[in-house]
Amino acid sequence: MHDADVRGFASDNYSGVHPEILAAVAAANGGHQPSYGGDIYTDRLREVFRHHFGPDARVYPVLTGTGANVIALQAACDRWASVVCADSAHIHVDECGAPEKVAGIKLLTVPAAGGKLTVDAIRREARGFDDEHRAQPQVVSLAQSTELGTVYTPAEIREITGFAHEHNMLVHLDGARLANAAAHLDLPLRAFTTDAGVDILSFGGTKNGMLLGEAVVILNPALDRGVDYLRKASMQLASKMRFISAQFLALLEGDLWLRNATHANAMATLLCEQIRDLPGLSVNYPVQANALLVTLPEPASAALHERFHFYDWAGPSPQARWMTTFDTTPDDIRRLVKAVETALTA
Amino acid sequence: MHDADVRGFASDNYSGVHPEILAAVAAANGGHQPSYGGDIYTDRLREVFRHHFGPDARVYPVLTGTGANVIALQAACDRWASVVCADSAHIHVDECGAPEKVAGIKLLTVPAAGGKLTVDAIRREARGFDDEHRAQPQVVSLAQSTELGTVYTPAEIREITGFAHEHNMLVHLDGARLANAAAHLDLPLRAFTTDAGVDILSFGGTKNGMLLGEAVVILNPALDRGVDYLRKASMQLASKMRFISAQFLALLEGDLWLRNATHANAMATLLCEQIRDLPGLSVNYPVQANALLVTLPEPASAALHERFHFYDWAGPSPQARWMTTFDTTPDDIRRLVKAVETALTA
Amino acid sequence: MHDADVRGFASDNYSGVHPEILAAVAAANGGHQPSYGGDIYTDRLREVFRHHFGPDARVYPVLTGTGANVIALQAACDRWASVVCADSAHIHVDECGAPEKVAGIKLLTVPAAGGKLTVDAIRREARGFDDEHRAQPQVVSLAQSTELGTVYTPAEIREITGFAHEHNMLVHLDGARLANAAAHLDLPLRAFTTDAGVDILSFGGTKNGMLLGEAVVILNPALDRGVDYLRKASMQLASKMRFISAQFLALLEGDLWLRNATHANAMATLLCEQIRDLPGLSVNYPVQANALLVTLPEPASAALHERFHFYDWAGPSPQARWMTTFDTTPDDIRRLVKAVETALTA
Amino acid sequence: MHDADVRGFASDNYSGVHPEILAAVAAANGGHQPSYGGDIYTDRLREVFRHHFGPDARVYPVLTGTGANVIALQAACDRWASVVCADSAHIHVDECGAPEKVAGIKLLTVPAAGGKLTVDAIRREARGFDDEHRAQPQVVSLAQSTELGTVYTPAEIREITGFAHEHNMLVHLDGARLANAAAHLDLPLRAFTTDAGVDILSFGGTKNGMLLGEAVVILNPALDRGVDYLRKASMQLASKMRFISAQFLALLEGDLWLRNATHANAMATLLCEQIRDLPGLSVNYPVQANALLVTLPEPASAALHERFHFYDWAGPSPQARWMTTFDTTPDDIRRLVKAVETALTA
Repeated sequence: MHDADVRGFASDNYSGVHPEILAAVAAANGGHQPSYGGDIYTDRLREVFRHHFGPDARVYPVLTGTGANVIALQAACDRWASVVCADSAHIHVDECGAPEKVAGIKLLTVPAAGGKLTVDAIRREARGFDDEHRAQPQVVSLAQSTELGTVYTPAEIREITGFAHEHNMLVHLDGARLANAAAHLDLPLRAFTTDAGVDILSFGGTKNGMLLGEAVVILNPALDRGVDYLRKASMQLASKMRFISAQFLALLEGDLWLRNATHANAMATLLCEQIRDLPGLSVNYPVQANALLVTLPEPASAALHERFHFYDWAGPSPQARWMTTFDTTPDDIRRLVKAVETALTA
Repeated sequence: MHDADVRGFASDNYSGVHPEILAAVAAANGGHQPSYGGDIYTDRLREVFRHHFGPDARVYPVLTGTGANVIALQAACDRWASVVCADSAHIHVDECGAPEKVAGIKLLTVPAAGGKLTVDAIRREARGFDDEHRAQPQVVSLAQSTELGTVYTPAEIREITGFAHEHNMLVHLDGARLANAAAHLDLPLRAFTTDAGVDILSFGGTKNGMLLGEAVVILNPALDRGVDYLRKASMQLASKMRFISAQFLALLEGDLWLRNATHANAMATLLCEQIRDLPGLSVNYPVQANALLVTLPEPASAALHERFHFYDWAGPSPQARWMTTFDTTPDDIRRLVKAVETALTA
Repeated sequence: MHDADVRGFASDNYSGVHPEILAAVAAANGGHQPSYGGDIYTDRLREVFRHHFGPDARVYPVLTGTGANVIALQAACDRWASVVCADSAHIHVDECGAPEKVAGIKLLTVPAAGGKLTVDAIRREARGFDDEHRAQPQVVSLAQSTELGTVYTPAEIREITGFAHEHNMLVHLDGARLANAAAHLDLPLRAFTTDAGVDILSFGGTKNGMLLGEAVVILNPALDRGVDYLRKASMQLASKMRFISAQFLALLEGDLWLRNATHANAMATLLCEQIRDLPGLSVNYPVQANALLVTLPEPASAALHERFHFYDWAGPSPQARWMTTFDTTPDDIRRLVKAVETALTA
Repeated sequence: MHDADVRGFASDNYSGVHPEILAAVAAANGGHQPSYGGDIYTDRLREVFRHHFGPDARVYPVLTGTGANVIALQAACDRWASVVCADSAHIHVDECGAPEKVAGIKLLTVPAAGGKLTVDAIRREARGFDDEHRAQPQVVSLAQSTELGTVYTPAEIREITGFAHEHNMLVHLDGARLANAAAHLDLPLRAFTTDAGVDILSFGGTKNGMLLGEAVVILNPALDRGVDYLRKASMQLASKMRFISAQFLALLEGDLWLRNATHANAMATLLCEQIRDLPGLSVNYPVQANALLVTLPEPASAALHERFHFYDWAGPSPQARWMTTFDTTPDDIRRLVKAVETALTA
């Protein structure tokens, strides 16, 4: 029904399913398999996550990124908890209040240049311990890569987890685009998660070529309590889970996760290289993953909006956000660059 | 990885994806489409639901049956509401408290022989209007077909919606297996929903051959307010929604939905016919959809559990629940019947 | 502004404040005292509760009975918990869904003759442990005395706490009228709470002669975690707490709590003795505390409603509920008895 | 038990009960009165609030300031709402997450110099209408007087309500210290509430000389729906409400509310006048109500903490907060001033 040759830069979730993943779904079809994760695909997936994140890792496949985040936060939070996060965090700006509404969790936001938290920023809200009037800061939530396309180094994450643990706080990592971070860092997934002291993780599949599927990954075994119930009560338990798990297996058993992310990142880098010197336009953050945030004159922005679907990132001065994906081609980049040049000179 | 020739009777969600639906997913792949329902598949789906449920029907695709139910109840409930339902209702016994936890909604349960509510039963809890100490009964929630495999007639539903509306209550219908009810009644979907006064509906896809997908369907336009936000905040908004909608199109544009349900029902009827006269076994409710609840001696039950995966329905005296699906074959039935006969005579 | 000589039988919360308690409020006035429980009255109250409930008891004064119950249940419940209670329990029928709304807790109700739970009744819902689809039964909640004016013996409570603990469940006791139970049993408070295995308690002051004030009392030290935060986040933290604590001191340092309850019970017993043999009327439960539930012909009930304010207890067949209080007089009883006789013979 | 001659500057809730109010409580005692607001004191209170806030005003007495705020926000918010407030707002910093936990409401904080919001500040978060990913900004919440002891003029409030209403938002006013604002402005209460376009109000009694009692006041009749239920389900419904209402009557029928507030303000002004020119100390905001926030050298602050109980207001650089109350005396001020002088010169 639609033109499969049209691609844009609006979001990595505008893309479809990687063919290898669709093939895996088809291969998992037929016959009966226990529902709700009792199937052999999910069983195998548990082993695959241990391979990537270490022997204590425990995976709970879920359905949406918001679902993964809110379940992870519940697993880490008492009923009276608050969570420190960047003011640009997805859990704060893009989840329609789900952490507050579903879990009653208060978010304490701090400024984060380029989307990245620092200990100094966290400290602004990681305080008031033992004050009964204050929702207790129990978790720091980071995104890797961030909403602004930047990536924490393992050392930066370790510094944050060290601070958090000293203050009896836990660290959640929103890894909707964790693969893009790994591709940028050229490191195994555990190097900047498990090994950097992260306690619990949301792991993204959908934005990296899956049809639908995310996961809560528990790295700190103390948090592995009741997550089955949290997942069901949070309405994130897939009945035919084999089809979620089969997708993840296709992504993670081999190197498809890394190929897809590496490609998406490379396309963003290519785009950045080709536009960063254009007069009148600025690329606002280091391009380390698959997103560019760009300031350009209002008429140029308007002209581009007529040709491409993309989002303006809200803030004091709006920025265009262009995202690349596993299926972005160099030709797509060329078309966008050309359009930008035209818009800027019109 | 698994044997695609093995099928059982544990649940209709043990089955996989109907081939026509999987083909539709593949056909919807490629290129970019707006996410979160901005795609052309979802747009078309809106028309298809209007076709089935009338010009005022408004569909919101979601991810799980629990998600559909809890969003629908929120759309119909004030913050201080309670919902009257059968003590066997899925929302009460199988959703890990999601209505209470996510939406703060109190459930008021009443006994329901064969899973079906009556006005007399509803009346036991549909009271205390204007008493500030009582969570206000604002909704009656029915399931069609019920958890016990029975089906309401349109007249039965109309009697309940009439009573509810007289008392300023709304009616929610949990239609996880609505197609099975339509097949049994040999009526169009709207005949026992829209036309019978139902206000809001959960419509099931997964148990009728989809990979994953359910929908909230608003029939009473007064309830179509804020559902976009409820869906997102309830973590039920698929980003690559085109793949949910494409499945529903494959199911609902033609008659696949009815073929699948008719077949599943026929298999249940066949099973019933072949076992109901076996000595020592009783089929406990009219077999109108795709489920049988059966009482059989404990040793026979134990013997069967060793050969087939099925659930024992909780209650004062446990019953075996056997479900048929779109892919159950007459041979499957024969194998089960034979095993039952053996178990009963062992 | 009102006639201080008019008393009725509607509820023990229609009464005012016992003079000794009002005097204590006045005595606590003047000067400044730390708020939120940092005052010396609250400090002393901690000792008084340890005296009554044992050295591990920990008291948290709160504002309403619903508040005490919902905080206590939160202290005992994981996010995925359900609570087994009588279908006549105050938490179920009279709290406008606060446990569900504020705490997301699912209630599982069981029939309870005379308002009293039994192990057999509890067992109907204390099941499905380890089933992720079931909100996990983690608490049994009893009321002592019950909504119907009956009282558990210590042995009955021990049987229930024994069953609960065997199943890794905790026991909450709604003691809005705990003093009335103690008066009936002629036992110290701890004999049928701490010493009977109860884990957490709501302790009532308002219905026993206080102006306003209830308390959460933790008997099982493992539950004493985060209750400060729960109390504040549940909006039950009084700023000028000295005035709540001073009332409790007046009630509990001496024997006022017992005098008040003993008197109220005696008045109920007197009422019962004087009406139970009247033709056409039946007293439905043993009168062990300060409530009578009475069935009487509809015309008689209507006639009495014109002269006295009382409630009809909802249920299959409505019953009149008459409650006595610390300030009910034998003359009040005589007036009611006379009116009942007149109504029955009219 | 305590020394009634010791007063400090920690908070207006360290003070006790004004004698006229305590007398009113005693006068309301005796006999029986309907509970839960059916009494004649509450009935009369409704009239008194209409007198102060206009004929459409509707009052709901409640128990705590947090309770009043969270009920008011629920009355004004859909399930998917967010509320814009100052980053120093009590609902954000001092309620242990109650708005999020009890009501699932997301708070969007903006910087507010001196605790006062402006349209420019509100605009930073009052956006994203119709974006399903954003909890919808439906309410602006102001405090009058603010946490920092400043007061909005009627014109400032009208500007904010005008902006809000243009954007289909409502305005909530946290009036825990509304009387202090009225005293400062020398205006009737309605002049800067009802007449300035405020939709719903929390009205404080406790900090102005009551024992315990706050109120939700609905000014926009469209919000008067279900508040009875919200109050009960939020655990803020007093059973012996006559004693809350009688206090409010004592405060509001005459001019006690204004006398108390005027006195407290005058004491703060006196304190300000006597310390503002001391070297090494700065008073940080206009002293318009009954609070001073003061920066002073760390050793001086430490020395003062040894003699007086007061709070350090959290923030980038801590400030001492000194509050005056209805019972603060000029002698108390002199003692504090002397101690400050000593501490600064030590």
